[in-house]
Amino acid sequence: MFKITFEPSKRGIEIDEKETILSAITKSSLFIPAGCGGLGTCGKCRVILEEGSVFPEAKKGDFILACQVKPKSELKIRIPEFSPILDKNVLKNGFLFQDPTLIQKFNLSPLIEKRYIELAPPTKDDNIDDVGRIKKGLGLDYEISFDCLKTISKELRKDNFKITATMRDKEIIRIEGGDREKSHYALSFDIGTTSVYGRLLDLRNKSVLAEASDYNKQIIYGDDVITRIIYSQKNDGLYALQSKVVETMEGIINELLYETKIEKDEISYIVCAGNTTMTHLLLGIDPKYIREEPYVPAFASSIPIEAESIGLKFSSSALLYTIPLVSSYIGGDITGGIVACGIAKSPLLTLYVDLGTNGEIVLGNSDFLLSASTSAGPAFEGGGIKCGMRAQRGAIDEIVIDRMGEPEITTIGGIKPRGICGAGIIEILAQMLFSGIINQKGKFSPKIENKRIREKEYVIANAFETLNNEELVITEADIDNIMRAKAAIFAGISVLLKTAGMKPNNIERVIIAGNLGSHIIPEKAIQIGLFPEIPLDRFHFFGNGSLIGATLMAFSKEIMEEIEKTANSITNIELSNSSDFMNEYIASLFIPHTEREKFPKTWEKIKELVFTSLR
Amino acid sequence: MFKITFEPSKRGIEIDEKETILSAITKSSLFIPAGCGGLGTCGKCRVILEEGSVFPEAKKGDFILACQVKPKSELKIRIPEFSPILDKNVLKNGFLFQDPTLIQKFNLSPLIEKRYIELAPPTKDDNIDDVGRIKKGLGLDYEISFDCLKTISKELRKDNFKITATMRDKEIIRIEGGDREKSHYALSFDIGTTSVYGRLLDLRNKSVLAEASDYNKQIIYGDDVITRIIYSQKNDGLYALQSKVVETMEGIINELLYETKIEKDEISYIVCAGNTTMTHLLLGIDPKYIREEPYVPAFASSIPIEAESIGLKFSSSALLYTIPLVSSYIGGDITGGIVACGIAKSPLLTLYVDLGTNGEIVLGNSDFLLSASTSAGPAFEGGGIKCGMRAQRGAIDEIVIDRMGEPEITTIGGIKPRGICGAGIIEILAQMLFSGIINQKGKFSPKIENKRIREKEYVIANAFETLNNEELVITEADIDNIMRAKAAIFAGISVLLKTAGMKPNNIERVIIAGNLGSHIIPEKAIQIGLFPEIPLDRFHFFGNGSLIGATLMAFSKEIMEEIEKTANSITNIELSNSSDFMNEYIASLFIPHTEREKFPKTWEKIKELVFTSLR
Repeated sequence: MFKITFEPSKRGIEIDEKETILSAITKSSLFIPAGCGGLGTCGKCRVILEEGSVFPEAKKGDFILACQVKPKSELKIRIPEFSPILDKNVLKNGFLFQDPTLIQKFNLSPLIEKRYIELAPPTKDDNIDDVGRIKKGLGLDYEISFDCLKTISKELRKDNFKITATMRDKEIIRIEGGDREKSHYALSFDIGTTSVYGRLLDLRNKSVLAEASDYNKQIIYGDDVITRIIYSQKNDGLYALQSKVVETMEGIINELLYETKIEKDEISYIVCAGNTTMTHLLLGIDPKYIREEPYVPAFASSIPIEAESIGLKFSSSALLYTIPLVSSYIGGDITGGIVACGIAKSPLLTLYVDLGTNGEIVLGNSDFLLSASTSAGPAFEGGGIKCGMRAQRGAIDEIVIDRMGEPEITTIGGIKPRGICGAGIIEILAQMLFSGIINQKGKFSPKIENKRIREKEYVIANAFETLNNEELVITEADIDNIMRAKAAIFAGISVLLKTAGMKPNNIERVIIAGNLGSHIIPEKAIQIGLFPEIPLDRFHFFGNGSLIGATLMAFSKEIMEEIEKTANSITNIELSNSSDFMNEYIASLFIPHTEREKFPKTWEKIKELVFTSLR
Repeated sequence: MFKITFEPSKRGIEIDEKETILSAITKSSLFIPAGCGGLGTCGKCRVILEEGSVFPEAKKGDFILACQVKPKSELKIRIPEFSPILDKNVLKNGFLFQDPTLIQKFNLSPLIEKRYIELAPPTKDDNIDDVGRIKKGLGLDYEISFDCLKTISKELRKDNFKITATMRDKEIIRIEGGDREKSHYALSFDIGTTSVYGRLLDLRNKSVLAEASDYNKQIIYGDDVITRIIYSQKNDGLYALQSKVVETMEGIINELLYETKIEKDEISYIVCAGNTTMTHLLLGIDPKYIREEPYVPAFASSIPIEAESIGLKFSSSALLYTIPLVSSYIGGDITGGIVACGIAKSPLLTLYVDLGTNGEIVLGNSDFLLSASTSAGPAFEGGGIKCGMRAQRGAIDEIVIDRMGEPEITTIGGIKPRGICGAGIIEILAQMLFSGIINQKGKFSPKIENKRIREKEYVIANAFETLNNEELVITEADIDNIMRAKAAIFAGISVLLKTAGMKPNNIERVIIAGNLGSHIIPEKAIQIGLFPEIPLDRFHFFGNGSLIGATLMAFSKEIMEEIEKTANSITNIELSNSSDFMNEYIASLFIPHTEREKFPKTWEKIKELVFTSLR
């Protein structure tokens, strides 16, 4: 019998060498998706080997399939906190998003062109060089890449001087014998700190053929960008981080190719959106100065490179583009997203908020664009919250606490709860205030008695009610984290409004991006003071803006140019320098806010519920 | 196993009795020409046995063929000095050439620019990305190379944001911390089939700092371009050929750096001129179709590449440019040469002849340019001639044969003779005709008696008179080769004149390029019918036009553009298709020519010497 300890729960169990790790997980009442029922085919039960030896053999840090692997010693196993939910139903019109009307119109104009031409074979009277013949056939004075040159004579003669030329701007990067015009696909990627999403795109008709995702395998080197930057400074750390994200992409690419029966060789290019640190790590560029004052990234513009030069297994003609960045903490995920929803082309004053570990905020319209990034912390992603989790099956996303202090909960997927996701966390804060469990400073100050209310802790679900038979609680420390997160976002929005000389009611649209976004109820977010009090019909959900941005850029050269232009025109406000931000932040560490006049409707409700009824 | 020690290098190696001395030389990375590939027929791999015994037997001091001889004991072998002659005296005004007035004027404008700038270090209020800061400092929207990006942040911070930027067109290819503007050098190369010449150039003042040369180490795979193309079709043949020329260049580069005390890192780029096959092999591009009808090269335009991509040990920022080609047999050595002497800018009708293994001919001026390549064979380089050699120390370059059949010779360097170079070969043909040893068809038909005149053979120097104690003779087979070579050149010139609708006396300038050129006496060349009878004051010697072309292109972007333009404007005449050429060639297999009226002065002399005096 070997002892298996699971992280992060620290739960332990003993199994023998004939049992799988999946069986240990199930026996421990821990949750892990296992769609194929232990056949080893779906790959969803991946866990990380942290200590010990297993059969079949694996290295420390490897992802292993829990259903296939057995212990050979005492083990420490990390169960990753989530597997992304892909709601296949929202893959409409070829796009995965919440509100298709938000996406800007664009013309199909791939970043790389593929053209079939039939050339006259050379004769004694017309024996110019092969490159010259191709240039003449294409009718323009193109340059030719050195790698392309190496095979050009052979390819020309494969199908008697009928060829397909692949061109980037004024450079020929590939020559193939015969008509290969139809083999013209691209990949778009959202390289997130936690998850990586990829799509396979048909460049002939703007269609998305498949989508796949996975954890960013860099997770083993740290949960957030700061930890990864620190890791990158170690010996070979930068290379290790680059290798892990490349490995993640390779897995997704293989899945996409398998699903669509398309050959790797038919992929002409890849477009990647990511935050500034992810973009640096992807290209293997030292991110050191992103973290050090005054926070300077090495590069911002899109730099097309050969995909193989970062270790992706492609031929040299396949290029990789990154989406232009704005600053150390406003990356290509944001520039891509705001161009995708056309903010810079619209007269409507728009507030774009991407809620993740950093809350990135953009305010503007066709006249101006301001951006800021707040280190809100991972509270809205379930991080730093005792029973927090990401928006997945079993996550509490809605909660009502009645006057007796009894909760009524709803979970994603309608199953027993196993944690609380960002949307649930927002609701809990409002409900605990309204039911008189906490005060407006977020401190426990119960006005009712209920056995669920303990010393600085509230029991949302008893152990017997949950999926994993573990009590779900919210602590005062959790509430502190949520307060700080919501205060940071609100203060960021306030600073941008003040900088622009605007008031909250000037905002004509609020666009919420990020996976979290789709589960938030705007009314509740306003009640806790996360967003200003803006009419609810102005709120829109955009889904994964980063992935939509990368997809649009892959389809259209004009979008690429617009992103570059937009990235250059954004004025980034460094909140860490701003005394205004500090003042606003402190004023926001209150529910909803110390300045009552900023939240008249919410105060009305608080007066009614807390001050009147409970008194 | 027997130890073989080589003189003068003192290098040693062990081989067994089944291996040849040639194999020991190759294994020791020493150089010796071996044109026939080890068959024992060319006789070029002669070495001197200094100590020990060999099979087949030889005496101490004997010349032995390294490719045929095996050791029977420990050996000491001397590899005779056989290094190309560089007449250091003609290195005037920074240029090595015969007639500096021929070189066209040009402005200094290096292909790659190096600029020192002092940037303001970033602050909280000015924290744009590092690349953006550099672009702003340079004042233009440059792209940046991926390799450069990898070190940019570090270099910027080496000397507090004072940097030197290296740029090619609109791309930043290198950033160095501090002021490195002075470290800006280039290399120019003539990559010949037999020899490679290199120069180290100071890009600040158009000066040539050093010159060095070596045999092209590809020689072990064959003497001429056709043999090398055939070799390139073997497994790894192309790579082997590329490696050998790269190895040759590395040796020359090390010599140039050693002589000038300049660091490799200070070399910004390399410009290489070579014939079409050499240019293909240098870049590792399959030359297969150069040799097959209709003789199509893979490329013609200059394609700048990273020097390291062909195996040269440089950092990725050092580029390598090849000079544009015209056709399969008119290469960058010719386009470089004709631009260097400004033919396309002058109204003077010029005949440019580069005498090498192929005789390349260009006819034209600012109105038009025609080119042709004749497979003259290597006779004028000493190849295919029993006692032929290149224009080096000990080569007979002048000869007079008196009426008694006795020769009087002059050698390069004034030492004992060891062979006959191209200039000597031309003289011998004229002198043997004038002295009545051969007839106008080039056949032995002696009208005098001398023990030097044997059956189809004439002894130029007896064994006791020579450096290597071997008799120097000229045979009827040698004369056949010379006749064919001179007929091919003359027929080529005739076809170009006819195509242009011109006569020989329209030619206002004859420019002779090639190493051979400087030793030729035009009067003698006319007498054997190599050149048309043109007034002697119209003949000019240009030296190594290929190397001069590469040097000029390295100094000047405008020269590069002019070469590209000129290469495109040349009309190449394929002589192998031309019945005119065949007719002219047959008519030229006579001394000087079957058509007496084409050589009135020469016929006068022949009449006087041969028909009158000797009769």
